[in-house]
Amino acid sequence: MTEMTHEETAPTERTVIRRYGWLAKYDKETIYSILDAGLVCHIAYVIDGQPFVTPTNYWRVNDHVYWHGSAASRMLKGQASGIPICFSVTHFDGVVIARAAFNHNINFRSIMAFGNAELLDAEAKRVALKAFSDRVMPGLWEHARQPTEKEWKVTSVLRLPLNEVSAKVRTGPPIDDEEDYALESWAGVIPVNSVLGAVEPDPKLRPEIQMPGFVSKFRL
Amino acid sequence: MTEMTHEETAPTERTVIRRYGWLAKYDKETIYSILDAGLVCHIAYVIDGQPFVTPTNYWRVNDHVYWHGSAASRMLKGQASGIPICFSVTHFDGVVIARAAFNHNINFRSIMAFGNAELLDAEAKRVALKAFSDRVMPGLWEHARQPTEKEWKVTSVLRLPLNEVSAKVRTGPPIDDEEDYALESWAGVIPVNSVLGAVEPDPKLRPEIQMPGFVSKFRL
Repeated sequence: MTEMTHEETAPTERTVIRRYGWLAKYDKETIYSILDAGLVCHIAYVIDGQPFVTPTNYWRVNDHVYWHGSAASRMLKGQASGIPICFSVTHFDGVVIARAAFNHNINFRSIMAFGNAELLDAEAKRVALKAFSDRVMPGLWEHARQPTEKEWKVTSVLRLPLNEVSAKVRTGPPIDDEEDYALESWAGVIPVNSVLGAVEPDPKLRPEIQMPGFVSKFRL
Repeated sequence: MTEMTHEETAPTERTVIRRYGWLAKYDKETIYSILDAGLVCHIAYVIDGQPFVTPTNYWRVNDHVYWHGSAASRMLKGQASGIPICFSVTHFDGVVIARAAFNHNINFRSIMAFGNAELLDAEAKRVALKAFSDRVMPGLWEHARQPTEKEWKVTSVLRLPLNEVSAKVRTGPPIDDEEDYALESWAGVIPVNSVLGAVEPDPKLRPEIQMPGFVSKFRL
């Protein structure tokens, strides 16, 4: 994987990185751990000069990220036509309150990847969608009704090679200007976490059907 | 506000909406409540034919969304140059497990807005950044050290009028094909919530400085 910082791919960010002391991390382990912590990405692409950004589910297998959708979708058709795309994942981890208004911030982990998406063929599509199911909940694929030929046909899967990818991470307490530590202002972090609520069985679930173990074991 | 569905602004989504029974909502109240529930958006824009998508903080005042950054940022300079942008907010609310693999889904609330950003002048910038602080935590602006003239100068604020904006929302249990309700498969929803962790005072905080009430009152 070609490792690039946000600075190299998006020079626009350089000042921001310096200003806030954000850490541009770009080792493969960091990047993959951020990708593997999420289920929703934002993909930007251009059609007729108009940028679009679409939230969608994604998953990673080795050095690619994958997403899927309706084969009739103009978005997927456009993305599969070889146009450049920008793939982004962001985890919002906390609100950072500094002593000075200028130094408030947020804690976050984010990924940005650039490249051209590939449309998977029928065989690769089946492998990829089972991998998605397994990534969400091992056991779910075997438990649910398998797709019909018609369902397979109307589903497309795309993938992006992680060749140009960078991570940006901010963690920890606020960073204030040296002289501001003498102020009377409070400073600290309010962490933000994604947590699971109590499982809600489908109201139409037949009462004799028990919740499978893979559902209760699910973690984000 | 011109109200548009995702279908009108992004025809690519139409099939997806129909397929999954997602509800395209576009009344102002729904759109504003989704916007006001978030602090992080994704903004797509094009520079030299390359799409970028940048996560950033945002806030809403009346019929505009606002965001800020370094005045030296190529991203903000590009966005302020009158190019079309796409603004997106997504809340991931749950994992929807259906009886058929094809009908798994997620619950979510999302906003998509299109238009051209405006760069605020010096006076409007001050009003907007105080509004951002007040939106996050009323009382924070008065508590923290105010920006210096130099800090004001290196900060830019942009805004986008909410003229072309749509919401898409999926809530509730899975929707399976009629014949699949007879299967032995479990079905239901695992809710996902953003929650606050215990406040972490800055390790460098002087011990006599108490946590202000607006910090303990903060909610997402």
